Amino acid sequence: MSIRLGELAEAVGAELRGDPEIAIQGVGTLQRATEGQLSFLSNSAYRRYLAETGASAVILSEEAASDCSVATLVTDNPYLTYARAASLLFPVAEAAPGIADSAVIAASAEIDKSASIGPCSVIGERVRIGADVVVGPGSVIESECEIGEQTRLVARVTLCHRTRVGARCLLHPGSVLGADGFGLANDQGRWVKVPQLGRVWLGDDVEIGANTTVDRGALEDTILHDGVKLDNLIQIAHNVEVGEHTAMAGCAGVAGSTKIGRNCTIGGQTGLVGHITIGDNVHISGAALVSRSFPKAGYYSGNLPAMENSAWRKLIARLRRLDDMAKDLKLLKKKVKSLTGESFK
Amino acid sequence: MSIRLGELAEAVGAELRGDPEIAIQGVGTLQRATEGQLSFLSNSAYRRYLAETGASAVILSEEAASDCSVATLVTDNPYLTYARAASLLFPVAEAAPGIADSAVIAASAEIDKSASIGPCSVIGERVRIGADVVVGPGSVIESECEIGEQTRLVARVTLCHRTRVGARCLLHPGSVLGADGFGLANDQGRWVKVPQLGRVWLGDDVEIGANTTVDRGALEDTILHDGVKLDNLIQIAHNVEVGEHTAMAGCAGVAGSTKIGRNCTIGGQTGLVGHITIGDNVHISGAALVSRSFPKAGYYSGNLPAMENSAWRKLIARLRRLDDMAKDLKLLKKKVKSLTGESFK
Amino acid sequence: MSIRLGELAEAVGAELRGDPEIAIQGVGTLQRATEGQLSFLSNSAYRRYLAETGASAVILSEEAASDCSVATLVTDNPYLTYARAASLLFPVAEAAPGIADSAVIAASAEIDKSASIGPCSVIGERVRIGADVVVGPGSVIESECEIGEQTRLVARVTLCHRTRVGARCLLHPGSVLGADGFGLANDQGRWVKVPQLGRVWLGDDVEIGANTTVDRGALEDTILHDGVKLDNLIQIAHNVEVGEHTAMAGCAGVAGSTKIGRNCTIGGQTGLVGHITIGDNVHISGAALVSRSFPKAGYYSGNLPAMENSAWRKLIARLRRLDDMAKDLKLLKKKVKSLTGESFK
Repeated sequence: MSIRLGELAEAVGAELRGDPEIAIQGVGTLQRATEGQLSFLSNSAYRRYLAETGASAVILSEEAASDCSVATLVTDNPYLTYARAASLLFPVAEAAPGIADSAVIAASAEIDKSASIGPCSVIGERVRIGADVVVGPGSVIESECEIGEQTRLVARVTLCHRTRVGARCLLHPGSVLGADGFGLANDQGRWVKVPQLGRVWLGDDVEIGANTTVDRGALEDTILHDGVKLDNLIQIAHNVEVGEHTAMAGCAGVAGSTKIGRNCTIGGQTGLVGHITIGDNVHISGAALVSRSFPKAGYYSGNLPAMENSAWRKLIARLRRLDDMAKDLKLLKKKVKSLTGESFK
Repeated sequence: MSIRLGELAEAVGAELRGDPEIAIQGVGTLQRATEGQLSFLSNSAYRRYLAETGASAVILSEEAASDCSVATLVTDNPYLTYARAASLLFPVAEAAPGIADSAVIAASAEIDKSASIGPCSVIGERVRIGADVVVGPGSVIESECEIGEQTRLVARVTLCHRTRVGARCLLHPGSVLGADGFGLANDQGRWVKVPQLGRVWLGDDVEIGANTTVDRGALEDTILHDGVKLDNLIQIAHNVEVGEHTAMAGCAGVAGSTKIGRNCTIGGQTGLVGHITIGDNVHISGAALVSRSFPKAGYYSGNLPAMENSAWRKLIARLRRLDDMAKDLKLLKKKVKSLTGESFK
Repeated sequence: MSIRLGELAEAVGAELRGDPEIAIQGVGTLQRATEGQLSFLSNSAYRRYLAETGASAVILSEEAASDCSVATLVTDNPYLTYARAASLLFPVAEAAPGIADSAVIAASAEIDKSASIGPCSVIGERVRIGADVVVGPGSVIESECEIGEQTRLVARVTLCHRTRVGARCLLHPGSVLGADGFGLANDQGRWVKVPQLGRVWLGDDVEIGANTTVDRGALEDTILHDGVKLDNLIQIAHNVEVGEHTAMAGCAGVAGSTKIGRNCTIGGQTGLVGHITIGDNVHISGAALVSRSFPKAGYYSGNLPAMENSAWRKLIARLRRLDDMAKDLKLLKKKVKSLTGESFK
């Protein structure tokens, strides 16, 4: 694929400064791009590479444009503009419509003719698959699932029975939607399974990372609204609800019945306890333990960052005596008050 | 499925207060249940929905019964009673016995005639599969595995060679039992693999969550005793042993050779270091780091809960100076003692 | 398999003290080994079992040799010597060369005749598979992947397009190499996907645990150098680079563009934020949050170990008032200084 720079600028809505006839065939980082490649600057830490880049053109903001020695595409949001340009240069490979010979399809499944069903995939009774859907190799779609148009299951995805996936979703390998939630009642020390009767319901434009799991609801559904993006190895428990355009980084976990608002970002390895509510526009750092509701927009953090082991050991020892310190301090205040005669605060 | 309320009460051992002829066809939450549905109250936070529920009957405790305007099933443990009632109303779908055409079965495998082997599953030499077992689509059972009666592998489960699974177990999609433990010896900076020669051994009534991994033992077996319940994305390392009826929530991890007692609960994302011992009836919060043995029954916690980022930054800065604070405090105590002439404590 | 002890000693380079004619058929722990089995002592905690072991021979260090009542193989590094001996006694089962009937192979794939391609695996266009490679059942290898000689994909492994795996690697079930990195640009509250155009590049002798995920790079590659060992359920984000012979334990996570040096060890559940640099020979405890670069060799830790819940609640309450304590302390110092007339430190 080769695109003229002028055409590219127009397609992505950036202001071109330079020769519109330059042919762009690929993309690269500022440090390593070569002739014919497009680069971008969105993190100012890389600005020093602008002057000597081998790229044929660079996407950047007005503010940085003067540092650049090659053609530029000037825009307010260079990373977004880059995303669009790269999508034009590298369109997702189209899958050939049709059903692979080795796929096993239940008689009552309704599969659009434009859909592509990969080898060794298994599709159950009454499944409905929309136009231009791609079900990659080795996937298992249990009975009564529904997949909206243009959604892509890359490979080895599992949808358990009655899972609903919207349009234009992207499900990465190994992801499992609709396994039973972890519902157990205790009978004198033995666990009795609580049937998990809800579904997983995904809106449109949802992305699910590799080996991520989203459990079906206990009674009502587990819901990921339009535009939710989950990275790899995330666990979403039963009856969680995640609002529009919220993104979570890898290894995060959300316990049962927690509601998360829209336009939130949740850092990697962060865990949320069950039955809490997170408002819209909440941002949580990585590796945090969220133990209560944060209804208000804001930035929240937790955890103790790593340090040299010797310093950490000393800190932990001090923490174990923090209660003693507090008591000593209280006593000291009393004594000093009696010495000075002044009230302490 | 429709069941008369009187019949249901008898089957689950609850006291019926109301018309035994009411037909129950489904279940629902107190807030959303409609006519013909059964609901339950086990968390007192939802008691306020009792008066106006649209359910035809509610399972609840004696104490809450008077608040309810519809028929009730009174019981000591409403959640357990609900679990039983829902299991009667929604029995697990039976799989048709037999072997799918696309399954690949080794000649020496012994598969009970009542078992159901799904499409695109692969079963190795000398595997033994008991009565009424379901091996869902896309599963791989390596050689010499053994699966007890009524166990269900939902889909895309992997059992590595010689894994032993008891009766009535439930293994969710993507789970992997019996992969090599992480055993490495160091040879002057290079890792040399230590053969992992033990097995994974599961008792009866064990549940394994989606994408959970249980490694085979190095020399002896990794053992999950009867009734152990593991949620999704849990890692159990080689030679771990987990006692009867212990449950672990999602994303927990247990390092090698650790022994966990019976009737424990381990919170989500909690990690246990290797070579420690956890007693019976130990309960550990989520996101805790268990760095030493807890042989005694009790409730244990760790981790610093998330807070506003500004407060967290201040706290971390204070923690970095905690040692200085402790030293100042010691000096102050000495000075005050010399001022007052009194011994400090 | 049975090996004479004399032969074994020579093969692993240990000094034999005892009868070279003893036949060794297996291995076992000091506590449980029986006649014909070889055991080893590498952790001094088990030294007390030496005197009464039922093993026919024990691998140990000079220092411990005198405690042992049976034949010994004396060596500087007993665990390493054991690894070698066990590998001789239990060689990995060879897979029969050839392509299973149920495998689906693209016409342009180049597969060495000595390779073994398991049932229900799917291999894409222009894939190149080297000599003695084993692709276990249910694996999916997308187009243009390359797999070096003697590498083994145990079962149900996914390699996304253009992934490069070196020689003698071992990829456990459910692992996913080359899924898209988590690259998103924000367009007024909506996420726009940033195409992930790099690859995953694995050196030789790399081991990848069950259900571990390694994402493809955004522009350049995600790289795991020779001898890297990853345990289960680890997440490696786009453009991470891990140096030779670095090992990571289960459930660790590394965010995007972070570089880790060689010969490091990373504990289980430890998380590294993105865009940082970890030097060579860095060792990080489990469950740590690495929030900044550690360029220097050393031992680093974080996190608050679990304790009794009542003590933890008290500690967290104290921590919430740590700022007040620091302020009180400052005031006290001032007051005591005014009483004593001495400068405080």
